[in-house]
Amino acid sequence: MKVRIVQLSVKIESVDAFEEATLENQHNSLLEPGVVRFDLLRDEQTPGAYTLYELYSSSEAILAHKETAHYQKWRDTVAPMMQEPRVGRDLMLVLPRHSG
Amino acid sequence: MKVRIVQLSVKIESVDAFEEATLENQHNSLLEPGVVRFDLLRDEQTPGAYTLYELYSSSEAILAHKETAHYQKWRDTVAPMMQEPRVGRDLMLVLPRHSG
Repeated sequence: MKVRIVQLSVKIESVDAFEEATLENQHNSLLEPGVVRFDLLRDEQTPGAYTLYELYSSSEAILAHKETAHYQKWRDTVAPMMQEPRVGRDLMLVLPRHSG
Repeated sequence: MKVRIVQLSVKIESVDAFEEATLENQHNSLLEPGVVRFDLLRDEQTPGAYTLYELYSSSEAILAHKETAHYQKWRDTVAPMMQEPRVGRDLMLVLPRHSG
């Protein structure tokens, strides 16, 4: 399984709209067969700082996610809300060994 | 719910021992009532680079985890395996809204 961790810096005035758009994307993403988890985290010490934790069944599932209408809608909706470009890292799940 | 994300840089010669020690800690941590998830991730691009993703029911559960014998054993076991001091961040789970 593959994990994508994305760091986002959102403009303060856009945090509510960002969370709302991400809720819609999360809901639809979890309906994809290859998306196992989709967590949004907020850094309480740094206003506007968020992290996405996305667990996929495979590398192919990451590519398939990026082709979906809901991902592309989210990407375009939140683009003007970003304070800085977002930074993603791709990782491999070591533990747990046999589950999501 | 609270999430702790920890970045670790492990000496190359210690990665197998590190994964083994972390497996034991993960197994025991998931038996704690306040530990919801405990994921270990490996960065395939950077040998020795790992991330822990730990989801807790509350801030109190994070403190309780640090008091357990299995956490303290893991901490002491892996300390000499670290290439650099580990870096942790505490975050709040925004989504999913009602689950782990």
